[in-house]
Amino acid sequence: MTNNLSRLLPGRVSTAPEDLLCYGFDASGLEASPSAVVWPHDLQDVIEVMAYARSNRVPIVPRGAGSGMTGGTIPLQNAIVMSMEKMNRILEIDRDNMTVLVEPGVINSHLQRDLERQRLFYPPDPASMKFCTIGGNVAENAGGPRALKYGVTRDYVLGLEAVLPDGSVITTGVRTAKGVVGYDLTRLLTGSEGTLAVITKVRLKVLPMPEEVVTLMVLFRDLEQSGNAVTAILSQGMVPRTLEFMDRAAIRAVEHYKPVGLPTELEALLLIELDGDPVVIRKEAEKITSICSHHQGEVIMAEDDQAREKIWEARRSISPALYHLKPSKINEDIVVPRSTIPVMLKKLQALSRESGITIVSFGHAGDGNIHVNIMADKENKPEYEKALGLVKDVFRMTLELGGTISGEHGVGMTKKEYIGMEIKPAEMALMKKIKNLFDPLNILNPGKIFP
Amino acid sequence: MTNNLSRLLPGRVSTAPEDLLCYGFDASGLEASPSAVVWPHDLQDVIEVMAYARSNRVPIVPRGAGSGMTGGTIPLQNAIVMSMEKMNRILEIDRDNMTVLVEPGVINSHLQRDLERQRLFYPPDPASMKFCTIGGNVAENAGGPRALKYGVTRDYVLGLEAVLPDGSVITTGVRTAKGVVGYDLTRLLTGSEGTLAVITKVRLKVLPMPEEVVTLMVLFRDLEQSGNAVTAILSQGMVPRTLEFMDRAAIRAVEHYKPVGLPTELEALLLIELDGDPVVIRKEAEKITSICSHHQGEVIMAEDDQAREKIWEARRSISPALYHLKPSKINEDIVVPRSTIPVMLKKLQALSRESGITIVSFGHAGDGNIHVNIMADKENKPEYEKALGLVKDVFRMTLELGGTISGEHGVGMTKKEYIGMEIKPAEMALMKKIKNLFDPLNILNPGKIFP
Repeated sequence: MTNNLSRLLPGRVSTAPEDLLCYGFDASGLEASPSAVVWPHDLQDVIEVMAYARSNRVPIVPRGAGSGMTGGTIPLQNAIVMSMEKMNRILEIDRDNMTVLVEPGVINSHLQRDLERQRLFYPPDPASMKFCTIGGNVAENAGGPRALKYGVTRDYVLGLEAVLPDGSVITTGVRTAKGVVGYDLTRLLTGSEGTLAVITKVRLKVLPMPEEVVTLMVLFRDLEQSGNAVTAILSQGMVPRTLEFMDRAAIRAVEHYKPVGLPTELEALLLIELDGDPVVIRKEAEKITSICSHHQGEVIMAEDDQAREKIWEARRSISPALYHLKPSKINEDIVVPRSTIPVMLKKLQALSRESGITIVSFGHAGDGNIHVNIMADKENKPEYEKALGLVKDVFRMTLELGGTISGEHGVGMTKKEYIGMEIKPAEMALMKKIKNLFDPLNILNPGKIFP
Repeated sequence: MTNNLSRLLPGRVSTAPEDLLCYGFDASGLEASPSAVVWPHDLQDVIEVMAYARSNRVPIVPRGAGSGMTGGTIPLQNAIVMSMEKMNRILEIDRDNMTVLVEPGVINSHLQRDLERQRLFYPPDPASMKFCTIGGNVAENAGGPRALKYGVTRDYVLGLEAVLPDGSVITTGVRTAKGVVGYDLTRLLTGSEGTLAVITKVRLKVLPMPEEVVTLMVLFRDLEQSGNAVTAILSQGMVPRTLEFMDRAAIRAVEHYKPVGLPTELEALLLIELDGDPVVIRKEAEKITSICSHHQGEVIMAEDDQAREKIWEARRSISPALYHLKPSKINEDIVVPRSTIPVMLKKLQALSRESGITIVSFGHAGDGNIHVNIMADKENKPEYEKALGLVKDVFRMTLELGGTISGEHGVGMTKKEYIGMEIKPAEMALMKKIKNLFDPLNILNPGKIFP
């Protein structure tokens, strides 16, 4: 059947076993075999693939780099994977108006690098920024450490070009700083996890590059003290650009995997970064140092780019490092009102103690977004089942504190069974109707978000 | 018929002629007579009114303070006006987590005042902030001068409670800094101009109060120089919180209405405000002063709150002042990419010259949002017809420059005939389907947005 697709887009379609394998899984660890992989080169290709999908009733799964954590790009129902990686041009950097126009396959860090040369700045920085794509970032409404000060992807998307399942091409939003004409289709598509439309162009807002950055690493021998330090810093009106947290288990995992010389008896580590005017951030760094010292934290300041990069390497390698603890893990990204982080961390410790299952917590302390990693070996059935059972407890505790079950990873496949804990029937019915309105044949990324 | 409604909500319904008159018009200058006015006191009241509307097929128009510029609250089709002014409680100020929960009838400046006491800050500041409501701000996605640095209402709405036309109550979004579970109903409702749901609660993000504010007024005797100064300031990487512009006609109108002692031979005036660390903003104020002087601008710094308030009074009184030039005006709020502002202003001057109709321009130079006021007397038919004809020219020029026909006022009634110039058939079809999905009986604010 996919022969017809190959004839339509010669050289841009594959059914080779190695491609079906490689494009069948993502960072969630889940997998399924697609019926084909197609690499559109332009808008017209996307329209053709969509027409093919419609007439053959075969689903399409749009895919960036496959770095998603919740299985959003897993090709269920023998879908065709539409990899956007060839549509990777930065089409325009409009310095005067502080916007860029990019194709969805542009890699986040490539955009960052090109902008940097013009002293411009695109804040969203998911841990996978070295390989994840802007299209994927928009589909998931990706965050990152800098979200504390700068917000998430949604806050930078001004407009989109996208292909609807019925083949029509829509252009949403504006290329200006403001715009309120009609319903906000731009934000409806942002974070819709490839279930409503295939994004083919993205107009982003960018900022002037901050003048200077200061990075502080703070070591705590007491978990509670680290939480108190976070609260104290933020309640003084300072807004660091990042305020990252690692617990004892995360620190040990990193030291084991990529030693950076951290004392392993630590209970918590904060990674604080300030940006802006050099005078101000040095003053703030001093204030933070004094607050942390008061809470028995030991402050280390990164004096240059190399030292800073080393610290960030440690932060970004937590996820891979954890696979050295256990061959598999259940990775959640809950958010709680940030004042309740210490409460949540204690609840997680108790849960770990009672169940005998290691739980590693790290993430964005400043905005309450904790990456909760329940460590369990998939091959060890009883252990893994028990670990899966804890997920519901974690979500229940999160929601009781006024939180949400996902801050930046989305729902995808891994959270769809739990979405009803957060989204009530009236909102769920509305969301399903919206899905049906965009995609009545259910050919776009089926089996995601909704249980 | 509305007797039944009065029985349902005794003391909260009126059909008195003076109420029908007062609630039949808004700041657009348009008017229509409602069949009744109802003042719900709580969620249950809103649900009752909606049920009444459904069973009697009578439309409902939710209304804040009626300060909207595009006729969004005009009760077409003998609608019942649902005034949200009694639902005006600030329910929670969560200082630790930097959020507030308010009812829709809370007045913007009342919220600002209460937050200020706790050193918190809600940036959106429409010119009508002294009387406009948060619910109206959300419905219109209101902006204001500070949007340049801080964004618009949409950027602060975390979650909503709303009643759908079918009577179901939905809770959207989160109360945390982040959240990506399901489709973004929060932003779909924000800016939907009361056509999709009635908002009954709003959860907003707030910020720490900036340490200090500096206000500069810059006087130019040459229009082009003022434009060049704006470009020069922003291209240096500075982001003032406001960068407002008034043209010669706006300056004269204000001097005439509320004299603040401005030389009337001016061609342009910039109102620049910086906030943040005192050291930084003083340094930036010096840089801006030197840039403006270089472009023959005369800089006056407001030394205290009183001087600052006097300057802002001038800015906020432009709109009323213009009514002293002509008894009516056509007020548009186009946005162009900010680098094209000088081009746009010249086009507007040419249009004014050719037509013989005065056009007054002022607004948010920093984000390209210009309030274009075409001055014409409604009672002078030929003049007013001619002025109406210019609107299309203004929108065409705006769109040719890559702009949008509304930056903050929305579409309402006054722009619905023009929406097709910007929104193409595919997007329009989608928006209409969304309207139909939420409101199949078309009982919520009918006759708005869509032609």
